[in-house]
Amino acid sequence: VSIDPHEAEAIRQEVLVANTAFYAAFEEGSMPRISSLWSHADDVICTHPGWPTLRGWTDVRRSWEGILRGGGAPQFIITEERAVVHGIAAWVTCVENMLGPEGPAGTAAALNVFVLHDHERWLLVAHHSSIVNGVLLN
Amino acid sequence: VSIDPHEAEAIRQEVLVANTAFYAAFEEGSMPRISSLWSHADDVICTHPGWPTLRGWTDVRRSWEGILRGGGAPQFIITEERAVVHGIAAWVTCVENMLGPEGPAGTAAALNVFVLHDHERWLLVAHHSSIVNGVLLN
Repeated sequence: VSIDPHEAEAIRQEVLVANTAFYAAFEEGSMPRISSLWSHADDVICTHPGWPTLRGWTDVRRSWEGILRGGGAPQFIITEERAVVHGIAAWVTCVENMLGPEGPAGTAAALNVFVLHDHERWLLVAHHSSIVNGVLLN
Repeated sequence: VSIDPHEAEAIRQEVLVANTAFYAAFEEGSMPRISSLWSHADDVICTHPGWPTLRGWTDVRRSWEGILRGGGAPQFIITEERAVVHGIAAWVTCVENMLGPEGPAGTAAALNVFVLHDHERWLLVAHHSSIVNGVLLN
């Protein structure tokens, strides 16, 4: 599989735009926008920091609704975004630097997976976010 | 893109076998086996529980070497494995139930992404694991 480097970069940019749109929708607290950016399939997955993995759009949607109801979203300063594309799938890693009403409110590492739908829209199919705490595994 | 349901299931099984091999290699503490199951590309990523995201095989490899040196791996009871395949990319979510010398040693949620190499081998390109602690985001 070979692909023109400019085209590859253009595709990565599309995926990064989808990733940015997701955080903007979350920050806005707009469930309709969040919903429009996710695939609604039964095999989507979402792991919020400290949570078990939720499976399927019904449970994933309910989690976002609950988070938006429960005080709303923090402000996000997203850094270190990198997109990797393999065929019709792509993923972005980024750092979620969160700001609350009283200032910095933690940093999380995220892995967001997208799939190209209808040859034109990169929809979220997986989101895994975890708090960066500096504690080693062992 | 349509695919025979039996073929789709066979591909999911291949991916699950690759996922199982990864945890077996980790449990064994075998760096050569871990290394053989990962892509060695510059765009692989690895997020250990509580860690920032590591990028590129060099840093990812060093993290596994460090973890194996630092007391070795726990025993894993892997549950709730689910594989999703989209073209040449696939991902597995699973629960990592860890057992240490003194019994249960925590539960983590993992998202492992694989890419098909040389039309035959599913290699790890991303691993994101986070401790499940029951604390809600808000």
